[in-house]
Amino acid sequence: MRVPEKILSVLRKERNFLIATHINPDGDAIGSSLALSIALESMGKKTYVYSRDTVPGFYKFLPGHNRFISNLKNALKTDPVLVLLDCNSPERAAIEHYVLRSTIVIDHHETEKDFGDVRWVDRNAAATGLMIFHLIKSLGIKISKDIATNLYTAISADTGTFRYSNTYPGVFRASAELIESGAEPDLIADYLYESWDRKRFDLLIIALNTLEIHNRIAIMYITRDMFRKTKTKPEDTENFSNFPRIIDSVRISAVFREIGKGVWKASLRSKGDVNVAKIAELYGGGGHKNAAGFKIQADLKSAKRSLLKAYKKLN
Amino acid sequence: MRVPEKILSVLRKERNFLIATHINPDGDAIGSSLALSIALESMGKKTYVYSRDTVPGFYKFLPGHNRFISNLKNALKTDPVLVLLDCNSPERAAIEHYVLRSTIVIDHHETEKDFGDVRWVDRNAAATGLMIFHLIKSLGIKISKDIATNLYTAISADTGTFRYSNTYPGVFRASAELIESGAEPDLIADYLYESWDRKRFDLLIIALNTLEIHNRIAIMYITRDMFRKTKTKPEDTENFSNFPRIIDSVRISAVFREIGKGVWKASLRSKGDVNVAKIAELYGGGGHKNAAGFKIQADLKSAKRSLLKAYKKLN
Repeated sequence: MRVPEKILSVLRKERNFLIATHINPDGDAIGSSLALSIALESMGKKTYVYSRDTVPGFYKFLPGHNRFISNLKNALKTDPVLVLLDCNSPERAAIEHYVLRSTIVIDHHETEKDFGDVRWVDRNAAATGLMIFHLIKSLGIKISKDIATNLYTAISADTGTFRYSNTYPGVFRASAELIESGAEPDLIADYLYESWDRKRFDLLIIALNTLEIHNRIAIMYITRDMFRKTKTKPEDTENFSNFPRIIDSVRISAVFREIGKGVWKASLRSKGDVNVAKIAELYGGGGHKNAAGFKIQADLKSAKRSLLKAYKKLN
Repeated sequence: MRVPEKILSVLRKERNFLIATHINPDGDAIGSSLALSIALESMGKKTYVYSRDTVPGFYKFLPGHNRFISNLKNALKTDPVLVLLDCNSPERAAIEHYVLRSTIVIDHHETEKDFGDVRWVDRNAAATGLMIFHLIKSLGIKISKDIATNLYTAISADTGTFRYSNTYPGVFRASAELIESGAEPDLIADYLYESWDRKRFDLLIIALNTLEIHNRIAIMYITRDMFRKTKTKPEDTENFSNFPRIIDSVRISAVFREIGKGVWKASLRSKGDVNVAKIAELYGGGGHKNAAGFKIQADLKSAKRSLLKAYKKLN
């Protein structure tokens, strides 16, 4: 991977940087930002790392996670160069109301906006973390254990820990070097996938006991009573819908969660080409092709039926 | 990884081989055996691939999976050299009642017996598949797509698809080469993790409902009656013990499966430094640090208590 010389020269020349990443930051956004911050500071630079939204609890193992700020006041006083990471428009980072004198964009998402003075958008890169890995090496900075842990996590998050189709040889070769620099694959996987508390797992078992499969659609539900009994919260259900995906015949996995009396929130995950955003839109919801959601006021039976009908209609 | 010259010379010199692997073969056993068979046949050798137990359904995507035989009659007529893979004693492969003129042992398990004419047991190897990868390269054989798919699957299976502590740099570098030779990480992960049939998932839910956690040890059990009711087989329980590992406090996840009246097979998975091979050895079983098993004749309650006691004793 070739790192644009222009980016290297700006990073070498300037002193102050504001690293900003997208709203609802994921592992790639967080890990890339922290790794770049640590690397630049090791060169004697001053960096601020900005995210509008707080870092999810299970990423708090990342070295430097407390560098994140959600207020730009102090950062702006230093007249920094903006480095936009894992996104390529100021709106995605919720910084569209600020004017900065110069901007570097480093991203692997499809280009939407023509923003920034120096842009490096490589849609073939598996993760922004992989681009930052090559960038840091090109700057001649030693990859410390802290940098390696952040970059390995970034790459893990965006490749489904090496299970998605973007797991190409360069991903593995970079990851091998990151282990040599101190990243610990098992510990990182533990933090990412094996850090549930007991009551969350209990709720999962209860939800799995409600599983029905109709016409390649897996449906589970969680009532307010189940939340109460297990002392869990709605955010504890994140990823629940991934479990029934294990079944080969399942194309859509849905979780209906009771959010009020007779009101349900459906969370949908699909495999391959099945577009659940289209289903969600039929009920005023939205999302992406493989992950979407909608709200519906109905009894549980009707709510489930609506989903099955929508799938039939669209297929 | 250095491949013993003695093994290479026997493989080059001899014509007929019987490749045998352990009972209840897992991904590493199956993938390694098939890869070696395909490689040797490409050199003009004749091979038989033996497993006492049938290949679990979800490994049937592996190229050459129908090479497996469970009857040795024809193989023995060729007076073959035995190649024992992913185990190191004839008992583990259920071939202790046959006498072969010469034996090569290739394995990475900790529990070692003194058997075979040429032994290559490397307990630091992440997978037997990784050893076979280097062996095939040392033989000067081109790694075909079929060989690559088998070896990538073998390595995936024994490293939890790169999530266990045996995910060291050499694992990634070999895997990168295997992708270059045609292995498809996303397809293999789909086959390994998202191709369960419905009844297997039903059995998982039933098993999860038996979950108890004592002193950081998660225990589930599956009775013969549960197998009967869900029309499932013992091999359907592969990976079940990984689910309770999701809970942060769990250090060991165990599944007790009833294999006869009052006889249980315990399958253990651990996190980090907890060595379950040591626990398994206390009861005449074996395995690796993070994945091991043993058999015990006892009622369920006593069987569970034995595990808890063994853990206490060793910690």
